[in-house]
Amino acid sequence: MTAVQELAARAAGAPEPTVAGIRASISPVLERIAGTARAREDLRDYAFDEVRELAGHGIGVVGIARGEGGAGGSVRDVADLVVELARADSNIAQALRPTYLMANQIASRPDLPHRDANLARLRSGALFAGTGNERNGGASGSVSTVARRVDGGYRVTGRKYYSTGGLYASYFSSQAVTDDGTIVRFTVPADRPGVERLDDFDAVGQRLTQSGSTVLTDLWVGDDEATVTGEEQPDNPWGGSFAQLYLAAVQAGIAARALDDAVWFVREKARPIKHSSAASSVDDPYVRQTVGEIGAKARAARAVVLVAAESLQDLRGVTGDAVRRAGADAAIGVAEAATVAIESALTATELLFDVGGGSITDRGLGFDRHWRNARTAANHNPRQWKSAVAGAYHLTGEEPPTTGLF
Amino acid sequence: MTAVQELAARAAGAPEPTVAGIRASISPVLERIAGTARAREDLRDYAFDEVRELAGHGIGVVGIARGEGGAGGSVRDVADLVVELARADSNIAQALRPTYLMANQIASRPDLPHRDANLARLRSGALFAGTGNERNGGASGSVSTVARRVDGGYRVTGRKYYSTGGLYASYFSSQAVTDDGTIVRFTVPADRPGVERLDDFDAVGQRLTQSGSTVLTDLWVGDDEATVTGEEQPDNPWGGSFAQLYLAAVQAGIAARALDDAVWFVREKARPIKHSSAASSVDDPYVRQTVGEIGAKARAARAVVLVAAESLQDLRGVTGDAVRRAGADAAIGVAEAATVAIESALTATELLFDVGGGSITDRGLGFDRHWRNARTAANHNPRQWKSAVAGAYHLTGEEPPTTGLF
Amino acid sequence: MTAVQELAARAAGAPEPTVAGIRASISPVLERIAGTARAREDLRDYAFDEVRELAGHGIGVVGIARGEGGAGGSVRDVADLVVELARADSNIAQALRPTYLMANQIASRPDLPHRDANLARLRSGALFAGTGNERNGGASGSVSTVARRVDGGYRVTGRKYYSTGGLYASYFSSQAVTDDGTIVRFTVPADRPGVERLDDFDAVGQRLTQSGSTVLTDLWVGDDEATVTGEEQPDNPWGGSFAQLYLAAVQAGIAARALDDAVWFVREKARPIKHSSAASSVDDPYVRQTVGEIGAKARAARAVVLVAAESLQDLRGVTGDAVRRAGADAAIGVAEAATVAIESALTATELLFDVGGGSITDRGLGFDRHWRNARTAANHNPRQWKSAVAGAYHLTGEEPPTTGLF
Amino acid sequence: MTAVQELAARAAGAPEPTVAGIRASISPVLERIAGTARAREDLRDYAFDEVRELAGHGIGVVGIARGEGGAGGSVRDVADLVVELARADSNIAQALRPTYLMANQIASRPDLPHRDANLARLRSGALFAGTGNERNGGASGSVSTVARRVDGGYRVTGRKYYSTGGLYASYFSSQAVTDDGTIVRFTVPADRPGVERLDDFDAVGQRLTQSGSTVLTDLWVGDDEATVTGEEQPDNPWGGSFAQLYLAAVQAGIAARALDDAVWFVREKARPIKHSSAASSVDDPYVRQTVGEIGAKARAARAVVLVAAESLQDLRGVTGDAVRRAGADAAIGVAEAATVAIESALTATELLFDVGGGSITDRGLGFDRHWRNARTAANHNPRQWKSAVAGAYHLTGEEPPTTGLF
Repeated sequence: MTAVQELAARAAGAPEPTVAGIRASISPVLERIAGTARAREDLRDYAFDEVRELAGHGIGVVGIARGEGGAGGSVRDVADLVVELARADSNIAQALRPTYLMANQIASRPDLPHRDANLARLRSGALFAGTGNERNGGASGSVSTVARRVDGGYRVTGRKYYSTGGLYASYFSSQAVTDDGTIVRFTVPADRPGVERLDDFDAVGQRLTQSGSTVLTDLWVGDDEATVTGEEQPDNPWGGSFAQLYLAAVQAGIAARALDDAVWFVREKARPIKHSSAASSVDDPYVRQTVGEIGAKARAARAVVLVAAESLQDLRGVTGDAVRRAGADAAIGVAEAATVAIESALTATELLFDVGGGSITDRGLGFDRHWRNARTAANHNPRQWKSAVAGAYHLTGEEPPTTGLF
Repeated sequence: MTAVQELAARAAGAPEPTVAGIRASISPVLERIAGTARAREDLRDYAFDEVRELAGHGIGVVGIARGEGGAGGSVRDVADLVVELARADSNIAQALRPTYLMANQIASRPDLPHRDANLARLRSGALFAGTGNERNGGASGSVSTVARRVDGGYRVTGRKYYSTGGLYASYFSSQAVTDDGTIVRFTVPADRPGVERLDDFDAVGQRLTQSGSTVLTDLWVGDDEATVTGEEQPDNPWGGSFAQLYLAAVQAGIAARALDDAVWFVREKARPIKHSSAASSVDDPYVRQTVGEIGAKARAARAVVLVAAESLQDLRGVTGDAVRRAGADAAIGVAEAATVAIESALTATELLFDVGGGSITDRGLGFDRHWRNARTAANHNPRQWKSAVAGAYHLTGEEPPTTGLF
Repeated sequence: MTAVQELAARAAGAPEPTVAGIRASISPVLERIAGTARAREDLRDYAFDEVRELAGHGIGVVGIARGEGGAGGSVRDVADLVVELARADSNIAQALRPTYLMANQIASRPDLPHRDANLARLRSGALFAGTGNERNGGASGSVSTVARRVDGGYRVTGRKYYSTGGLYASYFSSQAVTDDGTIVRFTVPADRPGVERLDDFDAVGQRLTQSGSTVLTDLWVGDDEATVTGEEQPDNPWGGSFAQLYLAAVQAGIAARALDDAVWFVREKARPIKHSSAASSVDDPYVRQTVGEIGAKARAARAVVLVAAESLQDLRGVTGDAVRRAGADAAIGVAEAATVAIESALTATELLFDVGGGSITDRGLGFDRHWRNARTAANHNPRQWKSAVAGAYHLTGEEPPTTGLF
Repeated sequence: MTAVQELAARAAGAPEPTVAGIRASISPVLERIAGTARAREDLRDYAFDEVRELAGHGIGVVGIARGEGGAGGSVRDVADLVVELARADSNIAQALRPTYLMANQIASRPDLPHRDANLARLRSGALFAGTGNERNGGASGSVSTVARRVDGGYRVTGRKYYSTGGLYASYFSSQAVTDDGTIVRFTVPADRPGVERLDDFDAVGQRLTQSGSTVLTDLWVGDDEATVTGEEQPDNPWGGSFAQLYLAAVQAGIAARALDDAVWFVREKARPIKHSSAASSVDDPYVRQTVGEIGAKARAARAVVLVAAESLQDLRGVTGDAVRRAGADAAIGVAEAATVAIESALTATELLFDVGGGSITDRGLGFDRHWRNARTAANHNPRQWKSAVAGAYHLTGEEPPTTGLF
């Protein structure tokens, strides 16, 4: 029975998914993904089959209540799962980010527009892509993609950047502006005519996140697929915190992978330097210490992510002034956690090379990609500004930016 | 109603204590302790009244099941409380360590000798001191304090070092050796004749932990106060992990205090350097950033402690090979958490000085004590060896030392 | 023959001093100073005799041309000597800063007012104190000490802070303002009636730098002791760079001392932790590594100081636009060197404690003073702003501040 | 007049080369190299013309006495030049390492076998490749390449690894063993039949150092090209220190380039994050600070290299016990300098990315190669062991390894 069949079976009355069950099911898939990540980067070969399998096993419904057909679990469970996904392949973890942003909105906002439709899609193993609120338009934040009003819907034309996970996705979300300036948000099948997904993302790391462009040409968007954004501000304007936490979880996964690869290399490949006190690298005192330091960095990154996830969980159901205060607190917590996770991942991936000599720099191993991945994921927005905004909040209570970029 | 009266009232039928309730009750006490910590260090003035108050509010029964008269709560709740205690005064937090070691043993070992008696003492607000298993005898581990067998008990003579919390304690625990080499462990009232507690601990930091010597002179120990240690090894020989986690929690508290003091100083005292772009220090970009970095360090230290505490909690009730494996895992987790907490506290306390100029080095503020406290608490056992032992475990599965010193 | 007698003898026809000769002569004095530094801090006991001896051996004329009665040597030689002084006792090194500021002005400015008189004083072993340009008056830079014009001179009344080295000094330099707003600078014997030097400096580190207040009460200043400051700007307005370099040299000395003390402690006192692979601390792999890291930090600090000193040397004799450009370059170089020296000293003094366990935190050793000294010396002006100013210069050529505080 | 013509002209009576003159001549060449480094890495396109030009301008005779046809200059001058070469392209700098090892041996050893011949080659612009002493044969240090004795010379067959700079070189040096175990060292024209240079080096960084294999097949080596190594140990067995210093200079160059690229990117490409206080990246406070920090790292790396170079210079002409002690000192100094340079380069190249957002991770810029280059060059031998050996030397006087690998 394939993963998709399993999901279908479950939908048809099979036992409900659980977080533990899903993690057990995907474990061999993650092992395969981990084993091919290096080669796939080099060949620019996307893991279409494996990602479909992950979706089929229900990874998209972790964090969705069991009563709604989800696997249950908290924001912390989601974050912990993302760490594991990123440990296997941080590119795939990031490519799944829009899917988890959708799932998080479903789980946290009972009033989310089109909630039922998107929940059903998640339950059937769909994946999402799209440029969410937080990445919608350059320095000025303006939207230039045009939505032309037509009977029963819109025709949308424009070009979107950073459509993370686009080639994996079954649905694509984005936004456009009508001629009277109204912002229209929409989610449509990714294979609908008028949606062209380009594989044009080329950074020094996270190269297979499919964060390329999407060209929209006279794309049909039905009224039932669209939401017109009003003026109202949510009680907690820092909804972007989850998206930032997600990136921190990716960093924690990269650090965990650095530990895995360090252990593997020392066990299987390394030889001690001539003047070492040890005959075997596993006994070299500095190799041992370095491995322990990498372990500590991985642990620090994961711990800050998990604890910050709890603060996002605690926001659920709180409203009004209370959630505004708690939301700002949580946003600051996520920002500080992110700086820790970034620093931990950068250090862990640098230290990885200190467990070996020249041979660990072999391109065949491709261990540099961990640092490149961490460095690229860290560049979504500057960590120094994260610290600065956090400091201002501690000092004066000044609220953090609500742009989603913080 | 005083705190002790409250406790008596509760014992007599008043509502049972809760973790949240205790934390609320002690909040003003901690505030007072925090406010006087600097002056007390200088004057070598112990906070006898305040510590008695904390005990009276029931801090010793956090982590003890409510069904047994405790406040409930997990190892994580205990660790979180210790962080708060240390944030107020890291010396007092460390002085309370033997009390929490006792409480942890009561909570985790149903078969603990004299469990009922010590539980009753904890419930009545007693505090403990003593050189626990983990600090019992220098390089060789030998015990030279002598227990002479007499009718119905022993007479004990010797000298103990590092009797942390001795002057606060109502009970003193230690061990001695009989002439046939048997190790006798005992707990007696600290004011019993034959127990002389010296105030002779003098380190560069953590100066008021009361970790001085205790001179035992022909001390009476009844058979009902003594335990003769057998040869049996516990399933999980890493019982010392909690004691190490405790020290990490102290570091997390020190880092949190560095944040508090940084915020206070910038708000109340600091002036920007002449060439700053800001007219007020709260607006200086690098002051803000530094405060945010201190916040991130404090958060990292606390997060690794909380998550490591969960792993100790998870050991409860597990037995045999399973707990040996999980116990080693947890010990490694605690060790790695400790290295993160130590590094975080040392960095946070160093950065504290970067939010001001010359005036923040004023001895009247005494902010150097935070670094001195962190540095001293970190020296219980070397962090590099923690990493090395962790690395060896990751690489080969080699089990960590069971000396309690790791 | 005492040091002062030696100096007198030389003045009377003895062989001219050389840098190497002076360094050889002071070597035993520095050893004594190093040996008593810890006790003197505790007792607030100034090394009057030893400092007088250092002066008698001619340390003040290092960097002054031999043709002028100096010992010759470059700015780099001076900086290197300061590193050695600070290695023995960083408090004394800083107390001598005003003397070296005077010597540096004499060496670099042929047109310095009262040059001959002050050169003669230096040659006779005099020491200077005073609040130089760079510390003259709080946020606004204003001078409130009043100079009242009288026949043949002034009567000066006011209070000066941070009179570094005041109690050691034979001459005191400061500035005052006349009722028409003219700034008058002056140097007078420190024991002249009207000069009261207070021992009221109390910081967490560098406690014996004698950076206390000086109260001036109707102090007589003759016209031949005074200079009226004109409006003219020097070609190179960053004359304060040497003063900043001096502080960096102090940091380098502190780092060097951390290495000395680490080596001494490991050799003489340390015992390895129970689970060490070594029977003796000198063989413990992590003790060795830590000592090597401290060594590297000390080396980095000294190297940046020496190379930055060369750039100050190279400014000598250059004028006009060329020196303005080179002066800004050198100021940036000194600032960057300072950030490296500060970071190196803070890390080295932190790592010092990692070569031992609990016993290295003994207050009797007082090793925490090295960190406290480094931390306090670092707080003269914020290192983050040093980096920021340097970055702005690299990016846009924006000139660094000329306040002397950078 | 081409560079090679210039050299010929000089050999024929033109003015002698000087360090300053050579540096001026190569400045435009380095600019071209710097500008193409990124593209050349991607295309695996060696800068044959430019390297020949550099050689033609006489870079190989820097550090050789002017009386011998060199450009004069000290070891420090050589190191400083290498920093500049590496700043332009760290791959080329490393490819030139065997040439500078040869030049250093010529400059420091009047008794060097075949000194005159190799000096003449250097003067004519020749470049060298080869596996020097320090990389001659894997863990056991054994040589398996065979030298068969024939009339007037040898026939050599075997395979050599890490023949750095091989494709640029006009001469190739290596060693082989005769059937009676004698080690034969030799230098032959790189284009002699029997020398096959493979382009098979593939590491994650320093990819164009041409450190591939060289296959020797029945290669003719005349007696006048060979040296039979005796048993005698040099007074200073740490001749490999220069080779290690060279690598540290490469790191310093990489750090300097990170500064260059940071400045360029901020000026030309960067936009501040939305919540920045600045309208332009050059004014963003954290961009400025980060650039200043990169500058400080570059400065630290260069300073430790220059000062360590002085200690190697000071060994020249010293003999016997004195040079053994000074040689060990210098080796330790170089090792500590290397750890500083490595750490500085790794940090500078990591920080480079913090001056921009997502756009600085663009593969077209290829800024990750700086970190990859630093990381790869650092892996020649483990930095932790450098610290450990240095620590042992400080603690006990234990001499560092003489393998050349330290």
